[in-house]
Amino acid sequence: MESVKSQSYEVHINELAKAALNQHIAKTSYSKIFLLVDENTKAHCLPIFNEMIDFPIDSVLEIESGEENKHIRTCLQLWEDLSNLDGDRKSLLINLGGGVLTDMGGFVASTFKRGIDFINIPTTLLSMVDASIGGKTGVDLGSLKNQVGVINQPQMVLIFPEFLKTLDPRQTKSGYAEMLKHGLIQDSSYWNDLIEDGDFTDAACIQRSIAIKNEVVLQDPTEQGLRKILNFGHTLGHAIESYCLDNHDKKTLLHGEAIAAGMILEGYLSHEMRGLSKLSVDEIKKGFLKHFDKVDFTEDDIDAILQLLKYDKKNSHGNVNFVLLQEIGKAVTDIRIPEELFQKAFAYYKE
Amino acid sequence: MESVKSQSYEVHINELAKAALNQHIAKTSYSKIFLLVDENTKAHCLPIFNEMIDFPIDSVLEIESGEENKHIRTCLQLWEDLSNLDGDRKSLLINLGGGVLTDMGGFVASTFKRGIDFINIPTTLLSMVDASIGGKTGVDLGSLKNQVGVINQPQMVLIFPEFLKTLDPRQTKSGYAEMLKHGLIQDSSYWNDLIEDGDFTDAACIQRSIAIKNEVVLQDPTEQGLRKILNFGHTLGHAIESYCLDNHDKKTLLHGEAIAAGMILEGYLSHEMRGLSKLSVDEIKKGFLKHFDKVDFTEDDIDAILQLLKYDKKNSHGNVNFVLLQEIGKAVTDIRIPEELFQKAFAYYKE
Repeated sequence: MESVKSQSYEVHINELAKAALNQHIAKTSYSKIFLLVDENTKAHCLPIFNEMIDFPIDSVLEIESGEENKHIRTCLQLWEDLSNLDGDRKSLLINLGGGVLTDMGGFVASTFKRGIDFINIPTTLLSMVDASIGGKTGVDLGSLKNQVGVINQPQMVLIFPEFLKTLDPRQTKSGYAEMLKHGLIQDSSYWNDLIEDGDFTDAACIQRSIAIKNEVVLQDPTEQGLRKILNFGHTLGHAIESYCLDNHDKKTLLHGEAIAAGMILEGYLSHEMRGLSKLSVDEIKKGFLKHFDKVDFTEDDIDAILQLLKYDKKNSHGNVNFVLLQEIGKAVTDIRIPEELFQKAFAYYKE
Repeated sequence: MESVKSQSYEVHINELAKAALNQHIAKTSYSKIFLLVDENTKAHCLPIFNEMIDFPIDSVLEIESGEENKHIRTCLQLWEDLSNLDGDRKSLLINLGGGVLTDMGGFVASTFKRGIDFINIPTTLLSMVDASIGGKTGVDLGSLKNQVGVINQPQMVLIFPEFLKTLDPRQTKSGYAEMLKHGLIQDSSYWNDLIEDGDFTDAACIQRSIAIKNEVVLQDPTEQGLRKILNFGHTLGHAIESYCLDNHDKKTLLHGEAIAAGMILEGYLSHEMRGLSKLSVDEIKKGFLKHFDKVDFTEDDIDAILQLLKYDKKNSHGNVNFVLLQEIGKAVTDIRIPEELFQKAFAYYKE
């Protein structure tokens, strides 16, 4: 499998990834090598990882899995651990886990002693195709996602699709939503292939998604323009995800499940605002609902979600800006939506 | 007074600073302008600042002064305040205060929503000539200084020497120690002028120090090599400062007071290791002790300080690396010191 070249780091898959990691460690004189895991990756991925490497790990740091732990308190513990274990500026942190872990580990590494090297080894499909690519790191602030963070690139990103076998299929499907998004915003034939066929966990599919995300990120690393298209489905999706996380009587949604709903809603807004054909909106809705359960939104839920919208970090000057589709495979950014359309979008979703 | 050009921002003094600030705000469409103060700058500097500006401040955020508040908990409060006050990616944070405030405000701005603009208006001599120049931001971790942070440049740094009149002279003298350091590492005639004359608070002196620091930082923004010379006196100085902060029966030392002791000690090490003449070491000791009280170190104090050394963030691979002087005005980096010399250095200090 070909490696994908990014600006300052490389994304390697399978055997190439293993070789790249061992070579990098052999040629770089790190003072200490730390490995960050959670209880799941410790149990299921660490044994596989240990077979791959030909260098010793100095210390394994463990955090609890789950978005609710993606908080500055967890970072504080990690900074203290690194400090107590004599981590210094020439130390390396290897992040072995899903998006929560790689986002947080990336942030901790980027800020420990004003920045040490880190390597991401995403173990969920979501983090392989999305979170670990592009240099966004950070943690949540209460229920507000990714409010605190930096943009900083890892030394390398290593993809081992075999880790996906260790996962709950619901987790894996969550990443599938991001892959479908890549098709919707950039490549209609990829959308068609993915929605029809569906072995989205094979290395070729994963690589196609990484290539799309990477191409976008390379052109606009700090999200001044083009990169915003990656937020399709995320403006409403984030608000839905935050709302469900905060309300214990609602079922917690995985990120992909929330943005699947977000993409249907924003697909509808695309129809109203940018002339995306009704046929395409229906195709998007049908495509997602084939793979993702419909979320049951009450009127109160919808009102609360719309309140949360104004806190979304992509909002500027108090306005909520959306990424919409002109057609499948072509996105436009910075669209403001009249308030009344949100209710119509939810009505369409519930139909 | 001429402005000093840095890589990505400018340092302006007095009238030029006032004009630069008002022009920058007029031409940049910020969604919200936040001002960060502490109880001292709120009382003494804010009224002067309000007279200077021709734009409104949306919200004033207040933190408690003091190194003991330079902690991630204070950052958490500020991130929450910014979020609750509808701060977004197009917001600006103006930091009005000393080094603790500009370091922490810079870190909060650099990490809020993955980075918003900030402007530093240092109000202490120490922050004018040192902390606010060079893009280092961060907070402490317990008693370990600046363990968490990023390197990120402000939009501009504005110097108003009149703020110094609002300060306790002990505070101002703390900055004088950094100015003397600039002479010692880079410019012997500046050292001579400063140690002899002494109106170190006038704009010309401040500018000379800023120019030296800026020249060093421009050549090596991420501290790979040359920039390390700015740490002269700081390896032992930081350990002394941390130790006194942590031990309530010791008098708390201001940063400049701690590094003044550090520079005498490291001056002695320079004599032992790099042939700095005994005459020069004596000149350094005499110069500092003319302006700074001698610190009373017991044997136990010295042992504890040497223990703390190994945590200094500049240490790599467990070794303690020092910046030493070959002669006054010429520094060398990455020198390892045999343990027994530390005791000799303290003995020389106590003589």
